[in-house]
Amino acid sequence: MHNASTASTTEAATVPETTSSVDSYFADHPTPPFLDNYKDRIQDLLDFHASSPRPIVLITSGGTTVPLETQTVRFIDNFSAGTRGATSAEHFIAQGYVVIFLHRRFSLLPYSRHYSHSTHCFLDFMRPSEDGKNIQVVDEYRPEMLQVLTRYREAQSKRRLLLLDFVTVSEYLHCLRASALLLAPLGPRVMYYLAAAVSDFFIPTKEMAQHKIQSGDGSLSLTMTQVPKFLSILVHSWATSSYIVSFKLETDPKMLLPKAQQALARYGHQVVVANLLHTRKERVVLISPVASTEYTSNPQYSSHTIDLAPGTEEIEEPLVEELVHRHEDWQSTSSS
Amino acid sequence: MHNASTASTTEAATVPETTSSVDSYFADHPTPPFLDNYKDRIQDLLDFHASSPRPIVLITSGGTTVPLETQTVRFIDNFSAGTRGATSAEHFIAQGYVVIFLHRRFSLLPYSRHYSHSTHCFLDFMRPSEDGKNIQVVDEYRPEMLQVLTRYREAQSKRRLLLLDFVTVSEYLHCLRASALLLAPLGPRVMYYLAAAVSDFFIPTKEMAQHKIQSGDGSLSLTMTQVPKFLSILVHSWATSSYIVSFKLETDPKMLLPKAQQALARYGHQVVVANLLHTRKERVVLISPVASTEYTSNPQYSSHTIDLAPGTEEIEEPLVEELVHRHEDWQSTSSS
Repeated sequence: MHNASTASTTEAATVPETTSSVDSYFADHPTPPFLDNYKDRIQDLLDFHASSPRPIVLITSGGTTVPLETQTVRFIDNFSAGTRGATSAEHFIAQGYVVIFLHRRFSLLPYSRHYSHSTHCFLDFMRPSEDGKNIQVVDEYRPEMLQVLTRYREAQSKRRLLLLDFVTVSEYLHCLRASALLLAPLGPRVMYYLAAAVSDFFIPTKEMAQHKIQSGDGSLSLTMTQVPKFLSILVHSWATSSYIVSFKLETDPKMLLPKAQQALARYGHQVVVANLLHTRKERVVLISPVASTEYTSNPQYSSHTIDLAPGTEEIEEPLVEELVHRHEDWQSTSSS
Repeated sequence: MHNASTASTTEAATVPETTSSVDSYFADHPTPPFLDNYKDRIQDLLDFHASSPRPIVLITSGGTTVPLETQTVRFIDNFSAGTRGATSAEHFIAQGYVVIFLHRRFSLLPYSRHYSHSTHCFLDFMRPSEDGKNIQVVDEYRPEMLQVLTRYREAQSKRRLLLLDFVTVSEYLHCLRASALLLAPLGPRVMYYLAAAVSDFFIPTKEMAQHKIQSGDGSLSLTMTQVPKFLSILVHSWATSSYIVSFKLETDPKMLLPKAQQALARYGHQVVVANLLHTRKERVVLISPVASTEYTSNPQYSSHTIDLAPGTEEIEEPLVEELVHRHEDWQSTSSS
């Protein structure tokens, strides 16, 4: 019932993205040279955990870029430091998951995020020892850093975290496809947590300037083409039996729920986490199709709001907990 | 003779950017709320060093962004991790300078750059002590980290480094103007080392979408306006008696020297550091007007190539040394 691939045969689902637009996108954007290495590392991780029933989450995090020139000096970027993804990764690991963390290069990483991208430089946390021969962590920071370091090393030694990075939207899409195809045999055990801010538009290679665009002409006009809706392909082809959570970030409150419902109607996946740019750290709303109406011509949607509780720090903690419960329920339904 | 403000009265210099285009740019882009705080911190630094003859360098570093929406989700960015600026800052401090480091938020910083933006997360350098109560730096990294930490703490305690950050091109320009006006009384003692990758185009506020641009229409057209040439205003109005070094990054080797010479002819400043995107860590070329021809109708340019010497790590070391010598010569000429 939850298998989204069946949705494409019903009335409510829209036609998935045509395979041809996706094929032509990949034909226009060659495979990144590091992809084979990534595939080996993913397969190696899956082999390592093959005998455990541990759930796996592919988290995407950070923004993707769209180069404006072949030899890139300028690019269009999407706002995202990667906070949502990096924070969530720690909570998924705490909940027993194996995390594949597909992130924008130099965006926030799980664990080290506590000490990077802050107004403090990490060297501010350290001082030379009195004899000048050693380095110590400043007393007031030590207890927390020790905790973070211990959790980080445990995640590493138990191989619960695989870090893979991308920069451009086409690198991201190649990585997503390759990961999904390797994860497909694990079906319902896999969750996709698509927190990356993915570009909607790109400049086709043949229309791109080879060298740095010169600024002599006084103004610059760019015409960009829409990136194929890969979420549709993920749901309907690459990951048909996995649990898929996408994110919808808007700035206009009026647009948020309609856009989230539209995404579910269009792609037929399990959850949209809707959030507003300016309150995204205090409130998220989980929108899902109501199971009984899921494939009717008039589907209804459930809405579950999570607010940051007083005294807690990270809304990702209750968000991940809720999704883990839903993923468990869904796995038992899928396997029954 | 080196005072660039005289150049505007001679034949070779182009007309500086009209004040009106700059005024209208600033009118369209309001003062960032943090600017007063930055001004206080700069003034405080200058007061602290008022009694010393120490030279001061304003380094700009990292890329600037151009928002595509008022409530920004998407923006155009310029490729720059901030390596040139962050590395150079350390060498300027080693040469006795006070450094004001005006950088893109989350770009590389002096000293901490050795441990950030790498494939290693900084936690990989640390481990819990055997009793689990403390944190130690892994043996193999300790000697270098101790050295970096010591130099960092010395720069801090002697107040030789002020970190100020920006994100958008308009924040950058407001900061540059405010800094220049505070530094102006120090005249020749000040060097500008303009390594930031500054956007050439922007979208005027009134043409900007208020909310996130929706992707439903299939394609996106952007028309952008050229950012006024602030280097001209810096040279001719804000910092008329300081030593100004700009950078020219190109991808096409044929364009590089002509563009560098064009910049000198146009703005009348002291040095352009020309570099190619793909060899920028191995070679830089310093282009300067030949003094005797500087203000003739047919100026000539000297070219000084610096290659990374075998066995050395950072081309910024000889680059900064060369500029420090030139700045010294220039200060003695200016004061004579």
